[in-house]
Amino acid sequence: MTTDTRPKTATRQLAIDGQTVTISGFCKGAGMIHPNMATMLAVITTDAKVATASHNTTSLQQLLDRAVERSFNRISVDGDTSTNDTVLLLASGASGVDLSRCDEQARARFEAALEEVCVDLAKKVARDGEGATRLVEIAVSGAASKAMAHAVANTIATSPLVKTAVHGGDPNWGRILAAAGRSGAAIDPDCITLTFGAPGAREVTVLRAGQPTGYEERQAAALFQEDPVVIRLDLGLEPSSANADVTVWTCDFSKEYVEINAHYTT
Amino acid sequence: MTTDTRPKTATRQLAIDGQTVTISGFCKGAGMIHPNMATMLAVITTDAKVATASHNTTSLQQLLDRAVERSFNRISVDGDTSTNDTVLLLASGASGVDLSRCDEQARARFEAALEEVCVDLAKKVARDGEGATRLVEIAVSGAASKAMAHAVANTIATSPLVKTAVHGGDPNWGRILAAAGRSGAAIDPDCITLTFGAPGAREVTVLRAGQPTGYEERQAAALFQEDPVVIRLDLGLEPSSANADVTVWTCDFSKEYVEINAHYTT
Repeated sequence: MTTDTRPKTATRQLAIDGQTVTISGFCKGAGMIHPNMATMLAVITTDAKVATASHNTTSLQQLLDRAVERSFNRISVDGDTSTNDTVLLLASGASGVDLSRCDEQARARFEAALEEVCVDLAKKVARDGEGATRLVEIAVSGAASKAMAHAVANTIATSPLVKTAVHGGDPNWGRILAAAGRSGAAIDPDCITLTFGAPGAREVTVLRAGQPTGYEERQAAALFQEDPVVIRLDLGLEPSSANADVTVWTCDFSKEYVEINAHYTT
Repeated sequence: MTTDTRPKTATRQLAIDGQTVTISGFCKGAGMIHPNMATMLAVITTDAKVATASHNTTSLQQLLDRAVERSFNRISVDGDTSTNDTVLLLASGASGVDLSRCDEQARARFEAALEEVCVDLAKKVARDGEGATRLVEIAVSGAASKAMAHAVANTIATSPLVKTAVHGGDPNWGRILAAAGRSGAAIDPDCITLTFGAPGAREVTVLRAGQPTGYEERQAAALFQEDPVVIRLDLGLEPSSANADVTVWTCDFSKEYVEINAHYTT
């Protein structure tokens, strides 16, 4: 069993008005993971002072909702949602920084740091999926709408054929495109660009505007041995935008997943 | 590898106006199986005479559409649809029976026999899923609409947790209810009745009106060792009706599925 027994924690610190503000979180959970939420407990704390609810300023709940939307609600281990999940965000105010008295720019930096903590934790949950050997990051851009980007990313992330291909280290782009095609989203095969690997790192574009690029199969296969495996699918229908692009995280599908879940009675 | 190498065939014969009419079919396919259709080729023949298209009488295409809806479009191996599926129905007329000249009752009998051939073939495809050791039949009744019955049946049929539980012979009703609950269909836990086993055969009702029945775990487990495993979920919201009830077929999820798909490059 490959499940990581190390605690899943994440911390970010930022300076606001000369004070150091800390955001820390920890969580557990590795099975029945799928948006929305997961068999998961996550507790995040900060020493900033943030109103729990407010009409005028950004409340703790609003900040958490937005961060969860881009983190815990974008992971999937097996497509099976859990029946009981919790993410808590607690703010003590001990740092002396009151977010309601900060300027807009400081609040945005706090919100970005909170999202980073949540994404960090969420990726650790996906990486620790039952039987998983690798994290898989699926970034979809250029969709006709954000909902369609979500549909494509989630369909790829829950495809047993894609997840077993990742497990086998097989850069099987046909399975990725087939999953995108059955997602219900608008797709034009002639507009699709598919790249493996993180931006700026070693990367291999296997399809450009729907045409095979003549890439080296060996290089693509090497990227499917890495952790994480990064799959970037540009549907090419709209310009890429931070508002419409969607990144989700999942893990590979191994025999150990079957072993764990075939013999664990609840 | 447990894949059955025997040909998948099905035949029904019926007497119409003193003549014997035969409907026979054969098909292949075991991976990327999910409504609508599958990586599948099926050819069905009959010696009845049936118009290929007609405004007045039932055409061959209409008969096939209705039968496929209740058979090939109700099987799932892995939730991954194929990109290329075919079901053909050919009518030679060699029996001398012309369906357009038969009475309504004879046409209905022909249509029922055609559906039986299609269901028989479809179940054989699901049973022969990659790495499968058992057929799983999931019958959902009492849903608020047919679409909701479909959603519940398909969510259970594609749940890796349910499919691994079947593989492990574990009558894990919590996973079945969790899948129903996340299907998006209207559910009232207090109305649900869940039974394992085929009607009239050995059967164990594990929940009635949402309450555990005090069944023998050993007896439920024995039904999960059978082939097929039959799961009957009555949502209890509407009276059961042939028009709204939905039965789908899938197979268990084994380590061999992962083995086959992790190391097969296309």
